Amino acid sequence: MARTSDVKDLVDRAREGQPRAVARLISLVEDASPRLPEVAAALAPHTGRARVIGLTGSPGVGKSTSTAALVAAFRARGQRVGVLAVDPSSPFSGGALLGDRVRMQEHATDPGVFIRSMATRGHLGGLAWATPQALRVLDAAGFDVVLVETVGVGQSEVEVISLADTTLVLLAPGMGDGIQAAKAGILEIADVFVVNKADRDGADATVRDLKHMISLGRRDREGPAWRTPIVKTVAARGEGVEDVVEALDAHHAWTTAHGELERRRTRRASSEIQAIALARLRSRFGDPTGGTVLEQLAKRVAAGEIDPFAAAEHLVQDVVRR
Amino acid sequence: MARTSDVKDLVDRAREGQPRAVARLISLVEDASPRLPEVAAALAPHTGRARVIGLTGSPGVGKSTSTAALVAAFRARGQRVGVLAVDPSSPFSGGALLGDRVRMQEHATDPGVFIRSMATRGHLGGLAWATPQALRVLDAAGFDVVLVETVGVGQSEVEVISLADTTLVLLAPGMGDGIQAAKAGILEIADVFVVNKADRDGADATVRDLKHMISLGRRDREGPAWRTPIVKTVAARGEGVEDVVEALDAHHAWTTAHGELERRRTRRASSEIQAIALARLRSRFGDPTGGTVLEQLAKRVAAGEIDPFAAAEHLVQDVVRR
Repeated sequence: MARTSDVKDLVDRAREGQPRAVARLISLVEDASPRLPEVAAALAPHTGRARVIGLTGSPGVGKSTSTAALVAAFRARGQRVGVLAVDPSSPFSGGALLGDRVRMQEHATDPGVFIRSMATRGHLGGLAWATPQALRVLDAAGFDVVLVETVGVGQSEVEVISLADTTLVLLAPGMGDGIQAAKAGILEIADVFVVNKADRDGADATVRDLKHMISLGRRDREGPAWRTPIVKTVAARGEGVEDVVEALDAHHAWTTAHGELERRRTRRASSEIQAIALARLRSRFGDPTGGTVLEQLAKRVAAGEIDPFAAAEHLVQDVVRR
Repeated sequence: MARTSDVKDLVDRAREGQPRAVARLISLVEDASPRLPEVAAALAPHTGRARVIGLTGSPGVGKSTSTAALVAAFRARGQRVGVLAVDPSSPFSGGALLGDRVRMQEHATDPGVFIRSMATRGHLGGLAWATPQALRVLDAAGFDVVLVETVGVGQSEVEVISLADTTLVLLAPGMGDGIQAAKAGILEIADVFVVNKADRDGADATVRDLKHMISLGRRDREGPAWRTPIVKTVAARGEGVEDVVEALDAHHAWTTAHGELERRRTRRASSEIQAIALARLRSRFGDPTGGTVLEQLAKRVAAGEIDPFAAAEHLVQDVVRR
């Protein structure tokens, strides 16, 4: 475990661009190290510069290929790029799936690129907790762009991805579009749509369906509306990738001009603060099996003696009183 | 909205077996009605009788068919069966997918069967909150068995399903087993495995893989170990369904004899109480955009002036002081 001087030193080395220091800091975050508050305090003054881009879509739409192509495009501009690949589907075994990481290997030896897989490790609120903190590490370490890539299923991914400055939703033709769209409450958080594998049959139909959906959708966000663009790509051949970067830049410029970027970042910070505060409050509940007030209450609820709302009221009073 | 006398009346009518009263109560739960505490208090004395069976598996393994077959088997014994079909994949649009519900229609006119789809409706902790409360409604209404069916992806489903008295994990041959298994931290919560579509090629290989996995897996649960059985079925033809029911009964008898049932129900109650208590505490944080302490803190964190842990500490102090 890091000693006090180590944390400052680690942060300094991460800011100098040493990948091992960056990796070490993210590990401290992922493992919910008791030094986390100290790490966060050392990072804070250096944060707020990175552009955070969320990228999501169902399995098979070409997320890894698209991420790799975007990394190449940002690198070509001389920007440093961090990638956080989030896989929340394995809450117990704690191992992120790296099956399709092959295409990222071209960037593996580039010191301007840092790639990290995030798994949930089973602890409650794992992703909602760890991902923004890992983001802070990359931000403080001077990465210009951070791509957060998730599989587009499940509530936790939506929560994670909705914290980005800009969210890109990937689709592909002929993936059972009806169900895909119905499932995808995730579409409602898209700032940029990308229809990948656009050389396949049905690409135009997918674009048409999206246009229709956008026309139906209300966004209910403050201020003037952003017109969500739809970009066609064949990421495996790099086709259309420049158009995607252009759309991302346009959204960044738009959010900056309309105060939306600041709103989103405040919302992200608010969500982080709440997650940490709730974890602290939850830790005051104590072990549900250790003879605690919580265990007593749980037994009475299981026996039908009191209801869970009355029990929760007792628990809140108990926590607040301490 | 229900008046005070209505709640008691609704509970009485639900206990008499009136499906519309049951449906109404679940709606009050799903919509997080302000009357929820009152509803819960009225239900509590009548809870604790239903057997709660969780059923999960990836799309395509035959969950709906298997659920329908199990419903038929329990009905043949004269037991009343409730089904909660949980679809957390659509946190924004709030509509559960009913595409494959066709096979449940044979039970649609049976008064001894109550089927309900649960969607998350976008509110935080939606499923973790609403599903156990809907369970309480069905329990109090006198259903002998409640089947909770979820799609086997994502952390929130694992949380929901892990609250069952008995958890049944469905697989099918040739579904990309390697990845299926790797993804499935969910396998670690299985009390009974069912390999459905067992007339297909690869069924024996799937059984073999499962046996291997079980032999590797440590369960880390208190008390003597339960030997997780593997049952082969062809649910569409009703083959093997009696064996599944037998395995479920065996697990029920085992958990009852070893105090595990009580432990699980206490754990379920504990999880419910905590979810409600956390929601109450969170509500004290206030609106992150309303000029609240939280908003002030979020703006300072977004600006890099303080770190989120220091901000969370302020927030906790603020909440506890009130």
